[in-house]
This record gives sequence, structure tokens and C-alpha cells, in this order.
Amino acid sequence: MTVLPGPAAAVELRPLPLSGVSVAGGFWARRLEANRAAIPLGRERLTEAGSIGNLRIAAGQATGAASGAGFRDSDVYKWLEAVAWEYARDPGEGLLEELRELGATIAAAQREDGYLNAVAQIRGEERYARLWMSHELYCAGHLFQAAVAAARATGEKRLLRVATRFADHLAGTFGPGRRGEVDGHPVVEMGLVELYRETGERRYLDLARHFVEARGHGRAAKPGFDPSHYGDPAHYSDRLPVRETESPEGHAVRAVYLAAGATDVAIETGDAALLATLRRQYDAMRRGKQHITGAVGSRWDGEAFGEAYELAPDRAYAETCAAIGTLQWAWRLLLATGDPLYADQIELLLYNALLPAVSLTGADYFYVNTLHRRTGARGEVQRSPAHGRRPWFNCACCPPNVMRTLAALPSYLATGTADGLQVHQYVPGTLTSGDLSVEIGTGYPWDGLVTVTVRAAPPREVELALRVPDWAQGARLGSLGRLRPVAPGTYARTRRLFRPGDQVQLRMPMPARVLVADDRVDATRGCVAVMRGPLVYAIEQPDQPDGAVLEDLRINTEVPLEPEHLPDLLGGVIALRAAGALAPGPAPTPYRPCEQPRPPAPPADLKLIPYYAWANRGPHAMRVWIPRKT
Amino acid sequence: MTVLPGPAAAVELRPLPLSGVSVAGGFWARRLEANRAAIPLGRERLTEAGSIGNLRIAAGQATGAASGAGFRDSDVYKWLEAVAWEYARDPGEGLLEELRELGATIAAAQREDGYLNAVAQIRGEERYARLWMSHELYCAGHLFQAAVAAARATGEKRLLRVATRFADHLAGTFGPGRRGEVDGHPVVEMGLVELYRETGERRYLDLARHFVEARGHGRAAKPGFDPSHYGDPAHYSDRLPVRETESPEGHAVRAVYLAAGATDVAIETGDAALLATLRRQYDAMRRGKQHITGAVGSRWDGEAFGEAYELAPDRAYAETCAAIGTLQWAWRLLLATGDPLYADQIELLLYNALLPAVSLTGADYFYVNTLHRRTGARGEVQRSPAHGRRPWFNCACCPPNVMRTLAALPSYLATGTADGLQVHQYVPGTLTSGDLSVEIGTGYPWDGLVTVTVRAAPPREVELALRVPDWAQGARLGSLGRLRPVAPGTYARTRRLFRPGDQVQLRMPMPARVLVADDRVDATRGCVAVMRGPLVYAIEQPDQPDGAVLEDLRINTEVPLEPEHLPDLLGGVIALRAAGALAPGPAPTPYRPCEQPRPPAPPADLKLIPYYAWANRGPHAMRVWIPRKT
Repeated sequence: MTVLPGPAAAVELRPLPLSGVSVAGGFWARRLEANRAAIPLGRERLTEAGSIGNLRIAAGQATGAASGAGFRDSDVYKWLEAVAWEYARDPGEGLLEELRELGATIAAAQREDGYLNAVAQIRGEERYARLWMSHELYCAGHLFQAAVAAARATGEKRLLRVATRFADHLAGTFGPGRRGEVDGHPVVEMGLVELYRETGERRYLDLARHFVEARGHGRAAKPGFDPSHYGDPAHYSDRLPVRETESPEGHAVRAVYLAAGATDVAIETGDAALLATLRRQYDAMRRGKQHITGAVGSRWDGEAFGEAYELAPDRAYAETCAAIGTLQWAWRLLLATGDPLYADQIELLLYNALLPAVSLTGADYFYVNTLHRRTGARGEVQRSPAHGRRPWFNCACCPPNVMRTLAALPSYLATGTADGLQVHQYVPGTLTSGDLSVEIGTGYPWDGLVTVTVRAAPPREVELALRVPDWAQGARLGSLGRLRPVAPGTYARTRRLFRPGDQVQLRMPMPARVLVADDRVDATRGCVAVMRGPLVYAIEQPDQPDGAVLEDLRINTEVPLEPEHLPDLLGGVIALRAAGALAPGPAPTPYRPCEQPRPPAPPADLKLIPYYAWANRGPHAMRVWIPRKT
Repeated sequence: MTVLPGPAAAVELRPLPLSGVSVAGGFWARRLEANRAAIPLGRERLTEAGSIGNLRIAAGQATGAASGAGFRDSDVYKWLEAVAWEYARDPGEGLLEELRELGATIAAAQREDGYLNAVAQIRGEERYARLWMSHELYCAGHLFQAAVAAARATGEKRLLRVATRFADHLAGTFGPGRRGEVDGHPVVEMGLVELYRETGERRYLDLARHFVEARGHGRAAKPGFDPSHYGDPAHYSDRLPVRETESPEGHAVRAVYLAAGATDVAIETGDAALLATLRRQYDAMRRGKQHITGAVGSRWDGEAFGEAYELAPDRAYAETCAAIGTLQWAWRLLLATGDPLYADQIELLLYNALLPAVSLTGADYFYVNTLHRRTGARGEVQRSPAHGRRPWFNCACCPPNVMRTLAALPSYLATGTADGLQVHQYVPGTLTSGDLSVEIGTGYPWDGLVTVTVRAAPPREVELALRVPDWAQGARLGSLGRLRPVAPGTYARTRRLFRPGDQVQLRMPMPARVLVADDRVDATRGCVAVMRGPLVYAIEQPDQPDGAVLEDLRINTEVPLEPEHLPDLLGGVIALRAAGALAPGPAPTPYRPCEQPRPPAPPADLKLIPYYAWANRGPHAMRVWIPRKT
């Protein structure tokens, strides 16, 4: 599993072993199949981009110039991590061969003293001289995560040895009494803690803690470079020490990666004060800096969190990697606290922030996940959602990040404790914690019925905890015919002597929910968003009445929305039909007296689809936040 | 005057001569005094930044390395233009000395063949090899404008000779059969046409026309650089030919500078089709891409126009230079067409887009003119309005642009034709067109009464045209006691035999006006903006009730706003008092069911000040668009 707290870690919940989770059919199985099919494409694209070539050149297996920015190695490492988790889900010789072959190249590229960065080595750059941009430690962090995944998934430790040699070199280079800089882009903290967990080497944890504590003292920004975000310590999560930060700020991916790594440190060192700070930071983000999809990041300039309540749907940056970092942070907080809030967040993120970033084919990606694309939108070819999804990017952090996260999906479904099993996400398949094994049957996320059938149980009372999502008003739990109400935003617990064949059912009504944002969110005032179950919905141009321009559609919130199962649309979805109206055409002047009457709005029907499925029919206008008919 | 169409130009209106306008007291006289007082500071800051030093080094008058980006010369030229117009307004030996001394340095810095760019010369850079960023032609354009201003204001032609030598060099270097590139940043087009007007050299006009027509063929973008706006031809107004452009796009300053230059070309070549295109472009901008203040530019990334209706107040880029470029464009369209729409635009821009960019002291500037600053906002130190105004910037295009525009204010007040005078802006002082001379008396913009007293008149019927602003419902015109209604958005014309002492009065009621934006503007839905006369109003934190956080204030649009004259506030303003309410505190969840009731909002009074006056009491929260109490 990704994230495996050590024996002494301060956690409430523990991940299930790799063998303790299997996914069998249903919504996510199709997404995982598509992801697996995309993995060979990932290798082709990494090769085409020169990212694998860089490592081969550094290893002396090829010749040529280095390709791309200094952090290209990290794309390869993330892809290798995806290969490892895929091997754990379903072993295959091809996957193992990939790990061995690329692992050998990486080992050959490593310098005698443990240093490793293909681009810097080929270009002969001074080590660690431009950490704000070279991201040598960021690459190290991804190498560590990949190496740990490979060791856990295959038992083979070749890549782990490369990782520990690099980590030993870092431990001898950075820290108190040594070099004091931090990397412009966090991730090495998470990587070092995982390496500590896998090897038991305490100095990796110490170095991670050092990197966390070293933030906030102006060690990350480019010296003397002040006119833009590159000169702003906040861009690097370096304006304030982690312990004094109230709300994540600056570059969103960096901020949430750092917070996830700091949570790892808090867990392994039992640092309750640090954990409390991180919980407060998460809450501040959730209340004022998180889009309704769970995505974070409001600004294109600096790829940054904006200020609190700055959440414009059309300019949402909502980088795919930021959603993944938020997921990693939420998972660590869930393990540390057992608070169902974080499991609710993981659900929200998986369905509405991670999944929209990849096409239904599994092979094309969004870097930026907008919540609103206008008719005829233009934008830069690389990142702009105006162009639809892309197979790869010049800065290709997102695609392999999606691959490794989907491949690791089983990690996030359930946890175990000494006396029970906690089910956080509802996916058909089998979950095993110790001698308790259950089978999950559900049509989730389309249907709110979850049936848990016990397959094996210990001869003593244990507890089965099922998350009741925060949205699940009217949920009930029990055995057939004997259902009791359970509260949304809690775990519904059943403690007893289970026997094989026993069933527990959780029934969650799934009416469409019409939501508004906090009164302080300026950009969505006068609009509503629609959810059903865990899914955020959107209107996209192809589903609307002939001739209706998406910008002109208004929703009538007085009329209940009607679900409609459409098996042939977008791989099979439940769409929602809504009553609405067409706004009158543009007024003669852009700004007019507020009392000036407008022509009446003719009625028009709207059809909503799940947001994750948009942009699978070419680039069309879309919006999550729909203006209310007034 | 800035912009002096040639004898054969296709214009409806012609500027008054420099001697034909004087400003005497009132609102603008104080702003012009402050601007004049800032001119010596401008020289200090240009010296401190090394911009003047660059020219001295290139001239062999000093030694050292070049400072700053390649287009630093342009800041000096814009400042020199301000000096020239100030000299025209009120001659002073000091100003003349500045022009002569710096003019001599510039002449000495010029290469034998006419080329001139201090930074490129000092650094030994290849000429015109990086036009997307070096902006050698942009610098040339500003030199031409400064040289023409100096010639018109002083009659001395030293700088004009430098300009024509450079222009001759450009005419021999660029154009059909020569180099085909265009500069990344337009402005040379306007400069060349003005140089043509001043010298009669047709090839300057031809080269300007060439630069206009050469856009739209991918000659401006940095080759092979595609992952951001620097690789997008739209960033350089180079995606489509000018004649095929429907709406300004990309970098806002570049787009409006190009459009203004293209309008100059259309005027001087009598190109009615080009003029018609440019009028359509202006209209598209006005309807969907212009903030209520007249400012343009919605995106920090790429300093760009966004899409139509993308007009978020909090992230408005609204660069000062873009407002100035829009003003220049509108002025040229007004001359070409006589359409009062453009004079209305100039009024809007002067009061609400140019003036907010400079402090009441005249010495500190905004680069970015936000319409909404949140409580506790942060941002990059250089451009972010979160920090308040600054004396100068690393990229210092805006401050000297404000200086030259305010110094040239008399240019924009009125025009003349063979048989009359058209008054576009109401400023106390004297206007003279031929043998018709009138005195304007008014308390504008606080008061809507304008009294025009004839001081000299020809012995024949002539026409006095007074603009009735588009906002002036209920306006009346006539002599004392005999007033007739006149229509907003027109010129009220009086044709007769005038005699000295005759008076014509225009009375414009000035109630506060509560406005909403087009239904398609997402970012201001549920909000109103307030104007009174030509002024946009705003709420700023220091004026609100004790303890009321600006974000929580809501305005009650059912209760009329009350004006209040406050002579001691912000140099003397009419503030507006409004009824309102305080929104309840943040909801427990950021997204909640739309039918969920909220606690009632306690009443609170709001006080609005003119937007131009904000940020003169330190950096505080401010907003132009105020959420309505619902």
C-alpha cells in the first residue's frame, strides 16, 4: 500500500495489506482497466519526450543532449510507481520486466556517491545550485516513492537500494550543520518518510522532519528575483514555517505536497501539535479555497491558491497534481485521526477532481481542470482546457501522477484496526483485515445501496464500520428489513460476532442536490451547482436543446431534477433533467440600471451529466455552476 | 496636441491647437498640478532605475553595464513626452532644459545609421533578433511620439531629427522586400503616423501601414516557444490580421496600442473598410471585455484580455497602460467619426481608469487596477494592488505613461470644425477654435451644471456642440430660464450668431445610479455597481461602520442612495450613503443546499467613495461591485 505507517506511528487507522483489497467490477474497475491500458502508452510518451532517454544517456547507455527541464526524471519515477502498483493489483511479466529494466538504467545513471539527476548530470550543472527550479530533491522524493512501491509490490529491492544510496547522500549533504536550502517543490518529505517506513532508517525520517521545519525562512525562492511569483516565498510554501501557517497558500501542488509530507512526519514522530496545525490548515482550505469538486488552486499565474473565497469556476486552475496531493494529504489525516471528514474528502476528490482529469479512454489528460469552459474558448495549447485533453505535456507531471494514483486506488478504500474493518469508499470487491473478510456489492456511485456480505470472520466480536457520507441525508443501516437511521458524516458501526454469509446493508437515498456556495464566494453568486450522491454534475453543450447557447441557459431551482439512466451516453451515466430558461440576448449596453426590466426568458430544458465525463466528445462549452432563473 | 491628423486625413473632427485649450481651476487642475509636481520625481526614479544611465552609457557620457530589460529607453521617452506637453501647458526653463539636455544625450547615443537602443547597444546584442521581447520598435515608437511632442510644444527639432533618422533606418530595414518581422509590442505604428503628420514624409505612413498589415501571420511570437502565452500569437495581436479580428484579444496593452495605430493609418489613408473593422472591434470590446470603469484586461497570466464576459473584479488586471491605450484608440475613433460614444468612453476612462492609477499626491502608481481588494490580501510586491501604490516598477511602463497622458489632458477636451466647436469633456477653462472662443464654468464631476460663456465669436452663424453624456437622463440645454430637453448620448447643438457674453447652459441631473452587468458576466452576478455622473463609486474599509468586515457588507437597492459632500475627505469628494446589511458569518460548510435558510442579516449602513480615490489611506479592502441584500 501507498503510505504504510510504522509500528510506533501515531495513527487511529491502518491501511489494509496489498493482498487485502480486490476490486471486482463496477464503476472503478472500468476506470482501472483504462488506466492499465494507458501504461504502455505512458512509456511511449516518456520515450518520445526524452525523459527515459535522459536516464539512458546519464547511464551511459545512449548519447545525446538532455531533454526538457531538470525535473524530467520525476515523470519516469511516477510512471514506475504506477507500474509497481499495477503489478500489485494484477501481476504480469511485462510489468516486472519494465521495473527491472528501467531500474537497471536508473541504477547505472546514479553517481558513485549516490547523487542522481539525469538532466543535471548530462548538462554538467552544479549540484543543488538552483533548487528553486532544478528540483533535484523533488526528483529524489518521487524516486523514493517509486522504489518503495516496487519493493512492496514485487519484493525486489534493486530500486530501493538506489533510493537509499541517494537518501544517504542527501542525509550527508542537507540538514543542521550542512547545506540549509530546501527544494522549490516539496515531495522529498513524503518520499523520505516512506523510505524510513520501508527500511527503518531513522535518519531518513529526521531529514524529512528537517525539510519540513526548514520551510518559512526564505530558503526556497530564487535569490534577488522579486518581480513575480518566482520571487515570492509563498510560491514555495516558504513564507511562514509550517507550524505557523494558517491556510495553504502559493503554488497549490507544492503546498499540499508539503502538508502531506508534514503529516507523515507528525504521524511517525507522534507530533500532536504539528498534526493539529495541519488539521487546521486543511480545514481553512476546505472552507475557503476548495472548489466544489474538491479541486484546489484558483490562479493561472503562479499555479496558485488564491485568497479565501477566490474560487472563480472559469479561471479555476485546479491542477490535476494538486487534487492528487490533496488526496494524499487527506489520506494521511484519515489514518492519523479516523475522522470521516477526510474520507468524505477522498470520495469527493476521487470522483470529481481526479477522475475528470483523465478521458474515459484513460489515455488523455487535463493539466488544468476548469469548472467552466465558454463557447468558443481559446487558450494556450499546452494547459488550457479550451483545447480538450492531451496525451502529454511539456511539463508532464500530471499524466503519470494520474496513472500511479489510479493504480493505487485499492489503497484508499478501507482500513483495519485490531478489532475491525473500516470501509471508506464503496467499490465492489473484497476487503480483508486480519481474519475478517467481507465482500462489497454496490452500484455506487449511481445507486446508494451497499451490501456487505461476510465471507470469513473471527470467532469473536469485531466491528464493521461503514462511512455514511456527509451528503447522505436519510441513510439507513442494518440487515434486510431491519434498518435504522444513521447520521451523515459518521461511521455507522456494527459490532458483533459475524458469521460467513451475514449481511449488512447501507441504504443511501440519492436525490439530486442543488447547492449554493458560501455567501463570500463572489464568483458563483446567483448560481447553483448540482450533485447526486458523490458526483458533481455539469451542463455540457452537446446535451442541451438545439440552438441553445450554454451561456444563455438558466436553471429553475423550483422544479425538482429528474434522474435518467442513459446506458449509451459517455460509458453509461445517470443524467439529470432540469427545468430552466434561456436568458434574453445581450442588452444594448453592458452595464444597465438595475431596475431596468429585461424581456421574459423563454423556458428551456437542461440536461446535466456527471462532471467527470465532460470533454469526452471534443472541446465544448461546459459549466458546473449554473445561473439560477430569477 | 497629441494626434494631429494631416490636411487630407479622413476625420470628422479636428483637435484644437495647443494654444486653444487652457484649464483653469476645478477638479482636473488639481490633478494636473500633482502630475506636474511628480515630473522631477520621475527623472529621479528614471535615474535610480538606470534608464537614463543606459542612454548616457550608449552616448559615451558614462560607463557601466546596461540596466533592466531591453525596452527601458521607452520609459525615458514617455517621460520626455510628458515634459514636452507640460511645457506646452505652462512653459518653464527647467522643462526646456530637460528636453535639450536629454535630447542631446539621445542624439549622441544614436548609431551612425540611425539605429538606437541603448540596452542592445551596450550589451552588443544582435539587432532585431529578439523582437518578441527586445521591443526595439516599441522603443522607436515612443521616441517618435516624444520627438513630435517636443517639436509641437517647443518648436525645437533636435529630437525630431533623431526620430526621423531612426525612422529612415527602419524604413530601409523593414517592409516588403526587406525584413518581415513585427515587434512583439505595438506602438511604432502610432509613432510613425505622428512622425508622418509632423514631417509629411509619406514613407513613415507607408511603414506604419505595413506594420499594421503584417500582423496575423505569425511573425511576432517567439519561435518554437509554445507552452505559454509567449508562444501564442494572440499574445502579440498576431493570431489574425487586423482586418479579420473581431474582438481585441491577448495582451491588452499590445492589442489596444495596435488598434490605435491602425486607426491612425485608416484616418491618414482614408481606409473606410479598416476604420469600420476597428469600430466593430471597439464595440466588441466595450460590450464584453471592458470593466465598468472602462479598464480592460482580465488576466494576470499574459496580462491579457480574457474571453467575452470574463470580467472578474478581484482578478481584473486592468493595466494602467491598457487604459491609456484605450483612451488613445477612442480619441482617434472620435476624430474619425464624431460619434459621441467615443467621447463618453474617454470620460469614463479619464475618471475611472486613468485617474485611479495615480495617487492623489500624483507620485505613486498602480500597475494593476483591481476592482476588488479583499481584507488581508497578499500578492507579488511589484504589481499587486494588495500592497497599495508604488513610486516605480521594475517594468516601469505605467508611471511615465500616466505622466504624459495627464500632461496631454488638454488635447482630449474639445475639437473644432470649420463652423464650430465641439466640447467633449467639461473642465473649467477656455476653448478656442478659430475665431470662436468660449469659457467653460462647471463644478463637474461633482455637479452637472456646465455654463459656456462666449468670449469671442465670428460675425457669422457657428455651431456650439456640447456632449450630453450617455448617463445624463433628464439633461436640459439652453440659455438661462429657457431650457429644452436634450438626449443622452448625443451632442446638443446650438447654431447661431454668437456674441461675447452669450451663455449656453447644460444641466445634467446627477442622481446616484445603481447598475448591473450583462446577464452573461458571471463574476458580478448578484452584485451592483454605483455611479454618479461620470464617476464609478466603491466601498473601502475605512469608511464603513466599526467592526464591519468589507466582505460581509450587502447593499439594499430598494433605498435610494444619498449624496454627502465631504470637503475634508480624500481631497474633497461627494460620498454616497447607502442602506445595507451585514451578511451572517460563514456557514458551517462551504457548499450548502440552496433551500437551507440562513440567519437574518442585521442592517448596516454603507458609505461609498469615488473609485479613483481609493487606496490613498493605505492598502485596505475595497470593492466596486457590491453584493445585493437578498
